[in-house]
Amino acid sequence: MDYSKILDTIQLKLKNHIPTGKVATYIPELAKIPGDKLGMHLYCINSGHYNFGDAHERFSIQSISKVFSLTLAMNTIGNDVFKRVDVEPSGNPFNSLIQLEYENGIPRNPFINAGALLIADILVSHLKNPKQELLQFIRTISGIDSITSNSTVASSEKKHSNRNAALLHLMKSFGNIENDIDKVLDLYVFQCAIEMSCQELAQAFMLYANEGVSIQNQQQIIAKRTVKRINAIMQTCGFYDEAGEFSFRVGLPGKSGVGGGIVAIHPNQYSTAVWSPKLNPKGNSELGMMALEELTTLTGLSIF
Amino acid sequence: MDYSKILDTIQLKLKNHIPTGKVATYIPELAKIPGDKLGMHLYCINSGHYNFGDAHERFSIQSISKVFSLTLAMNTIGNDVFKRVDVEPSGNPFNSLIQLEYENGIPRNPFINAGALLIADILVSHLKNPKQELLQFIRTISGIDSITSNSTVASSEKKHSNRNAALLHLMKSFGNIENDIDKVLDLYVFQCAIEMSCQELAQAFMLYANEGVSIQNQQQIIAKRTVKRINAIMQTCGFYDEAGEFSFRVGLPGKSGVGGGIVAIHPNQYSTAVWSPKLNPKGNSELGMMALEELTTLTGLSIF
Amino acid sequence: MDYSKILDTIQLKLKNHIPTGKVATYIPELAKIPGDKLGMHLYCINSGHYNFGDAHERFSIQSISKVFSLTLAMNTIGNDVFKRVDVEPSGNPFNSLIQLEYENGIPRNPFINAGALLIADILVSHLKNPKQELLQFIRTISGIDSITSNSTVASSEKKHSNRNAALLHLMKSFGNIENDIDKVLDLYVFQCAIEMSCQELAQAFMLYANEGVSIQNQQQIIAKRTVKRINAIMQTCGFYDEAGEFSFRVGLPGKSGVGGGIVAIHPNQYSTAVWSPKLNPKGNSELGMMALEELTTLTGLSIF
Amino acid sequence: MDYSKILDTIQLKLKNHIPTGKVATYIPELAKIPGDKLGMHLYCINSGHYNFGDAHERFSIQSISKVFSLTLAMNTIGNDVFKRVDVEPSGNPFNSLIQLEYENGIPRNPFINAGALLIADILVSHLKNPKQELLQFIRTISGIDSITSNSTVASSEKKHSNRNAALLHLMKSFGNIENDIDKVLDLYVFQCAIEMSCQELAQAFMLYANEGVSIQNQQQIIAKRTVKRINAIMQTCGFYDEAGEFSFRVGLPGKSGVGGGIVAIHPNQYSTAVWSPKLNPKGNSELGMMALEELTTLTGLSIF
Repeated sequence: MDYSKILDTIQLKLKNHIPTGKVATYIPELAKIPGDKLGMHLYCINSGHYNFGDAHERFSIQSISKVFSLTLAMNTIGNDVFKRVDVEPSGNPFNSLIQLEYENGIPRNPFINAGALLIADILVSHLKNPKQELLQFIRTISGIDSITSNSTVASSEKKHSNRNAALLHLMKSFGNIENDIDKVLDLYVFQCAIEMSCQELAQAFMLYANEGVSIQNQQQIIAKRTVKRINAIMQTCGFYDEAGEFSFRVGLPGKSGVGGGIVAIHPNQYSTAVWSPKLNPKGNSELGMMALEELTTLTGLSIF
Repeated sequence: MDYSKILDTIQLKLKNHIPTGKVATYIPELAKIPGDKLGMHLYCINSGHYNFGDAHERFSIQSISKVFSLTLAMNTIGNDVFKRVDVEPSGNPFNSLIQLEYENGIPRNPFINAGALLIADILVSHLKNPKQELLQFIRTISGIDSITSNSTVASSEKKHSNRNAALLHLMKSFGNIENDIDKVLDLYVFQCAIEMSCQELAQAFMLYANEGVSIQNQQQIIAKRTVKRINAIMQTCGFYDEAGEFSFRVGLPGKSGVGGGIVAIHPNQYSTAVWSPKLNPKGNSELGMMALEELTTLTGLSIF
Repeated sequence: MDYSKILDTIQLKLKNHIPTGKVATYIPELAKIPGDKLGMHLYCINSGHYNFGDAHERFSIQSISKVFSLTLAMNTIGNDVFKRVDVEPSGNPFNSLIQLEYENGIPRNPFINAGALLIADILVSHLKNPKQELLQFIRTISGIDSITSNSTVASSEKKHSNRNAALLHLMKSFGNIENDIDKVLDLYVFQCAIEMSCQELAQAFMLYANEGVSIQNQQQIIAKRTVKRINAIMQTCGFYDEAGEFSFRVGLPGKSGVGGGIVAIHPNQYSTAVWSPKLNPKGNSELGMMALEELTTLTGLSIF
Repeated sequence: MDYSKILDTIQLKLKNHIPTGKVATYIPELAKIPGDKLGMHLYCINSGHYNFGDAHERFSIQSISKVFSLTLAMNTIGNDVFKRVDVEPSGNPFNSLIQLEYENGIPRNPFINAGALLIADILVSHLKNPKQELLQFIRTISGIDSITSNSTVASSEKKHSNRNAALLHLMKSFGNIENDIDKVLDLYVFQCAIEMSCQELAQAFMLYANEGVSIQNQQQIIAKRTVKRINAIMQTCGFYDEAGEFSFRVGLPGKSGVGGGIVAIHPNQYSTAVWSPKLNPKGNSELGMMALEELTTLTGLSIF
């Protein structure tokens, strides 16, 4: 398949589409990002790297980090993770607090905020230096040692985290948070503020396309069964309240972040990442969604 | 792959497991079904049919019929279906009415009751004889002309449909139901009461595994794009509040019914159906879930 | 106290206030009522009748009828009424369906729609001719034999009753409705369409101000204890989601209707009714609320 | 009226009733209180003091303190209080968080926890030494200088305040909390841990029965209009999810606390307080409710 031509077609199509969405503004640092940034990177198991635009420029990965923290938590305590967080789609953003209350402090899945905060609590409990170990894990699977977290973004995010603090206190009232709330929030904003480029994300996510084996050194970094589980969770829960729509239009497991990044993988075929900061009303990158829909249409490769 | 041996292994495993679930009792006709019925049928594109147990005995397909009615509605009015019903997972059964109210009478997806009732309303609006046309559609795609709906089950179901009537009235108050409520309910209970065996279901669902092409006469019955969409909806919404768990454990698009049936497909590989009437607390066949988990584990074929 | 002067003051104040609210439009018959209608009637136990404006013109009493039907139900089956309906304020209009579901089909109180429908079901179960008996009850306590229900309004209301039908079906699914849903709806729209003037309402409600004794013939029509209970329910639940605000501003038990009428009573002092069709955003007569606030301020008589 | 005899009758009736409720256990200090404590104090404007049992023993007033803090807040910033908190009954305890979210961080009323926390935030903003000023206010209106807060109870309550912290963070995320969350929680647990006897409570609440005038020195401590408002809020919101039931059975404005205390007032007649630590399922003192129902039945004095 001529992936080079396919990416050209996608780039052309995106250029002709003027996004109506808006850059995230809930923290000043994200609001500053130019809305016209656009990059895409495709990493194929058989034929290597393809990209266009700002594919090499780093941006705030935000919620995409939830996939990494979940993986690290599963590598640390295995399926015990799922004694404290469920794996069901959450329905509606509006429900976040009521669902948590109705279901006795057990978050619906690890990718809604409540669930990711709970995963952070697990890491704080079981790792000596959770921030550094999470960062090291990402460096290892991507093969890029210079990846780091932006402390300005993190501290700004910390200042706007009353809603996350509310979720943590509510879970703690049900006995489902073990550590000091400030410590957990600290790790959480650290991971959200990690910065990576499309290429770096595609390299990191290759692990999930390649059954847990590093494509660089052929080592099994995470168990094949763990990968299958995480991919299933990305499929059903990776896009806020648009998981069904993404599944419907793209048909791949993936994860988005409010920084405008989206990653997706096709098992045994490729991993890919897109970046365009303008978000649709559901909080997912507007052009990113289009790019991935186009990709599966043009390659004819969808898991369905 | 030796599918024959794989089914033997599954059968043995299921025999050694005593289900703790219960047969559905909300209508007397379903409560009468012996709880120890157990059958499975696997239909592979390349190698044909495999089965064990009660694979040839018909049972009430109940919510599995929602896949057929959605397909027929999409074949009739295309994507206009999705102007009236969304494609997002619904979260929590408890939310059925509140979500419908909060989202102004637009059901979350076509597989929750509200959504399936809306699809029935579409069929009543656009087909001359919706019951017969739906039945004919199922007979065509399965290749079995004797399939029919059990009128005793249908009329018993009608008598216990106050909650469904409430959903219809609520949607009508938002202007999202066009027809007489009794007529829509009539079609809905008719489709739920259709009876098919595992083999017949596997034959019908082969269409979704085979990109919309009938394996019998090589005709394109439904568009490839429609199949992809329906499979995506089965993946995210096919199992009540256990879609994530099924995705996690099995990793295939599928649909279950309270009659104890579950169907699943692996695109370009196979379709399969299991029947065991005892349901787990989420309303899905307990042994059916195990059988399908075992199948993807033993074949190594999951979409993730 | 010079009630005549007090009513003059109120009338003057209302004339100088231009309401920003709107006449109810959910059925065409109510939408036709001129928005500038304004009448008030005060009936004092010691000093008789006072009124101004359109106090003698009949209008659709709508939800005010819920007080009469509750009284008749309590006169018929006593406190057994409260086995099927609670007496707690309902919080939020948005909650109507979810609360009903969460509380297993038991309405929060007899004045929300679900509760009034349940009271109608009780009357259908226990009275031979519920419509005529309810009408006769109102004629008796008001002393006005010509009071009747407007059949055009009733049948128009019936056509717009999908939400009420949804509530009835949901309650029936919990086993809390005994009769045919259509029959119950019929009684309900009949009672809402009853037409009375401010004077007639004030005369009828004198019973609740006078401990259940008819001021006309000194007979005990309803038990003193029943009156106390109904007044308590009017106090906490009489004004949709504005019961607290009314309690706060007026401090009297009362009941409003979307036809623009409001009644209120001061135990052992007076009963009063106001009519002005323009409703505030919570669905209560805008000028009616002002008139009653003014009345308790000027008389210095509030129950608090 | 022979109040002395009436209290004898009530005491006898309570002695013959074995409560099925339980002492509050959410903090160890409350769990230690003997369940058979029972006291009642009645303070009549015209005839002075009557009491029985443990009427002079102090107990944790808990939520009864919310009436004092609301009064102090209204004395400090007037009706601006109601720009930040509503006055409507809250429906259902289950709704606490969802209602707060749905209504954009505006608590339903000052007596649910969210509302009382908001009132505490107001006091922290506007008073130099909020703890001491609140205590001084209570000492002044009761005429008892030795009233104080139990610091052991307060610090224990602080340790179990994750749910209250969640409410504060959620309100802060909507911009409706001005101060440091820890400071607000500190004041809140301080006020809950204030200890008073039935007699002391009855003396303090005489202000609300006597139109805001101190019965001791005839000074107007709070405006008559403020008293009317607070009484109206006690009437509709004073008893968690049992405000309607209390209104129905007792017919007086009142407020209960999980320490087993209940206060109630009859405007221009009396104030009263009961203490019995065993709570009914709604969280109100079981014998306390009975005592007050008996009181209004025997005196024939209810506001309805």
